[in-house]
Amino acid sequence: MTGPVDSNEPEVSIKHDDDHLALHEAQSPSSLSVTFGPDKPLHLDAGVQLSPFTIAYETYGTLNDDRSNAIIICHALTGDQYAASPSPVTGKTGWWSTMIGSGKPIDTDRYFVICSNVLGGCSGSTGPASINPETGKAYGLDLPVITIPDMVRAQTMLIDHLGIEKLFSVVGGSMGGMQAIQWASEYPERVNSAVLIATAAHHSSQNIAFYEVGRQAVMADPDWHGGRYYDHDTTPRKGLSVARMAAHVTYMSEQSLQSKFGRNLQNRAEKTFSFDADFQIESYLRHQGMTFVDRFDANSYLYVTRAMDYYDLSADYNGQLAKAFMGTKTRFCVVSFTSDWHFPTTASRTIVHALNAAGASVSFVEIDSDKGHDAFLLEEPEFFDAINGFLKSAARNMNLDEAAGNQGTQT
Amino acid sequence: MTGPVDSNEPEVSIKHDDDHLALHEAQSPSSLSVTFGPDKPLHLDAGVQLSPFTIAYETYGTLNDDRSNAIIICHALTGDQYAASPSPVTGKTGWWSTMIGSGKPIDTDRYFVICSNVLGGCSGSTGPASINPETGKAYGLDLPVITIPDMVRAQTMLIDHLGIEKLFSVVGGSMGGMQAIQWASEYPERVNSAVLIATAAHHSSQNIAFYEVGRQAVMADPDWHGGRYYDHDTTPRKGLSVARMAAHVTYMSEQSLQSKFGRNLQNRAEKTFSFDADFQIESYLRHQGMTFVDRFDANSYLYVTRAMDYYDLSADYNGQLAKAFMGTKTRFCVVSFTSDWHFPTTASRTIVHALNAAGASVSFVEIDSDKGHDAFLLEEPEFFDAINGFLKSAARNMNLDEAAGNQGTQT
Repeated sequence: MTGPVDSNEPEVSIKHDDDHLALHEAQSPSSLSVTFGPDKPLHLDAGVQLSPFTIAYETYGTLNDDRSNAIIICHALTGDQYAASPSPVTGKTGWWSTMIGSGKPIDTDRYFVICSNVLGGCSGSTGPASINPETGKAYGLDLPVITIPDMVRAQTMLIDHLGIEKLFSVVGGSMGGMQAIQWASEYPERVNSAVLIATAAHHSSQNIAFYEVGRQAVMADPDWHGGRYYDHDTTPRKGLSVARMAAHVTYMSEQSLQSKFGRNLQNRAEKTFSFDADFQIESYLRHQGMTFVDRFDANSYLYVTRAMDYYDLSADYNGQLAKAFMGTKTRFCVVSFTSDWHFPTTASRTIVHALNAAGASVSFVEIDSDKGHDAFLLEEPEFFDAINGFLKSAARNMNLDEAAGNQGTQT
Repeated sequence: MTGPVDSNEPEVSIKHDDDHLALHEAQSPSSLSVTFGPDKPLHLDAGVQLSPFTIAYETYGTLNDDRSNAIIICHALTGDQYAASPSPVTGKTGWWSTMIGSGKPIDTDRYFVICSNVLGGCSGSTGPASINPETGKAYGLDLPVITIPDMVRAQTMLIDHLGIEKLFSVVGGSMGGMQAIQWASEYPERVNSAVLIATAAHHSSQNIAFYEVGRQAVMADPDWHGGRYYDHDTTPRKGLSVARMAAHVTYMSEQSLQSKFGRNLQNRAEKTFSFDADFQIESYLRHQGMTFVDRFDANSYLYVTRAMDYYDLSADYNGQLAKAFMGTKTRFCVVSFTSDWHFPTTASRTIVHALNAAGASVSFVEIDSDKGHDAFLLEEPEFFDAINGFLKSAARNMNLDEAAGNQGTQT
């Protein structure tokens, strides 16, 4: 019990700091960032131009001399650019630091890895918590609704800025997978390979249903103030927490909930005959909800869930998904997990069938896992082997190994 | 356009009436009811005695001379005693009027059908909206937590009151099925046959998770006032609506959502790029949430979901479910639906295995349906045939037909 301790700090003050820290990062990120000015507006699907706008990003590894070893990582719903480096808000290691790094499946000794926060997010790319230059206040719902193609269009401007013509690979799971599909479909000449993990080419009715529940929970919270809570120094904590709890259940399989929690009681021998969190699963979900609120902006949650709901690639091709990939030279790897009911294997098979019909090169693997949708964020050896193997094969195919040998000359 | 019309009534006034009507029915039901006084307290699992308490109920058909043709219908989470007669709150026909009636699978020409509102409910049986005689105000959360066995114990007192020693059958789906299991296990000598539909002998971790989301949504609503909203003339409409939306998604299958709504837009040709209910599924869910609030008490929702969470019959038998049915002479019919993921067929099979291990008479049928959990409330011919066939067979087995012949003498 020697040395400085902070135990006199009241807990509520720490929470308040978290709120401010998250908002500060949304408006002024610790990571790299690039702001595109009036000369480079972003044409949004909503029919308006966004300008200026910022993309916050992180990079890992080194770009080789011929700029051919870049991989863009597209993050999922509530992810951020800190894929393999600590989050400045939570202090936790990067959300995919098991996947990305020296000697890891996405090997930073070989590849130059870029991960940017999505447009509409809250880790420094322009989103509803960003300052609207026209008002000097946070956008709130004045920011136009953002789509998956908008997110990808912004990413193309980022790689232009980095001087990268063609990506070695685009890799993403869940909403990140939607971005990867969009990249491969809309910019095939810029994508050597694409890894689509636990994803779908459109949001299903059930997917929309669960996210609509979450949005209604946020908007029902009086602290939401029609999205103008930044001006009221409140956040819709309770509503966002409920939204996260509902979503979190869909990310886990029935089996994993049963084996992890079952009907176990939380720190008690008997039921309390009350509405306390008697069961471990209740305590766990409440914790998930509360910690989420500390790191994520409620309006961003509305925007990113809406982006997923709106996504339907085949709608641009009269419902014929194969037409989205006609003549593509991109090599595809599609991965699903057996117990994922949020984006089930059937959704991956739909993509694979379309790629096959388009004559694309595609390898498909369904990984046996009881971890549900969240499996793509966990260390599953078979999954990691599949990603590693696919990328190595794709690298051989384009002779990237020789190019990678040049890498040392740049540093 | 002749005759009296109410079109001048403002819509908001009708809604307000609904609120009051539902509360009025909770405290003073239109149906039959019986109040048990201080001489007949109810021993609750929470370890306290409830007295006085009221059970509100409806009956259909006629009790035969030897009182052997009674069927008790156990309703599901948000059901009520109006199984085959119009609800005084919504005006809609009874929730199981396709199943119960003259010439229907549960034939009121042959059987005397009783349906009571569960303890903890809000249609006239004692629940959190009932007046606490000690305070003259609604109980709110001062009502002890109610369990499935408590609900059944109250029902045994109801049939005692009606002079019925032994039930011809106990029939229930979902939470009603839990009550039917409990009846058969705890009072085997009073139950000739039991029909367990789309149910389970315990709530799973995932089941608890979804209901905890709903409870948190209710309790997050500032209009909930710690359960004392009756005194504030408010109701936690938004929170309860979100809770209902979340639950409703679990009652439908992915297939039924897809075939019924898919990604169809609601009364518009294009997406609005907003957070309006662009999709039919969003509009449908919002409607489900809003209409639910008009008919159901928010605190009751906490109580009945908690009752389901707490239910685990095998826990009373060291985890050995078969022991709950040892030596039973009750005949069982267990029914599940292929697309029900809320109470999947595996949960029914667990019951069937236990019944087999106990040497019970059991017939099990899995009905092919894409309607999800809600299938048990819908008109599914194969399902109706199964119920009808089982009851007829059970009636033959106990020579009920001859007994039923006596029925005419009573009227």
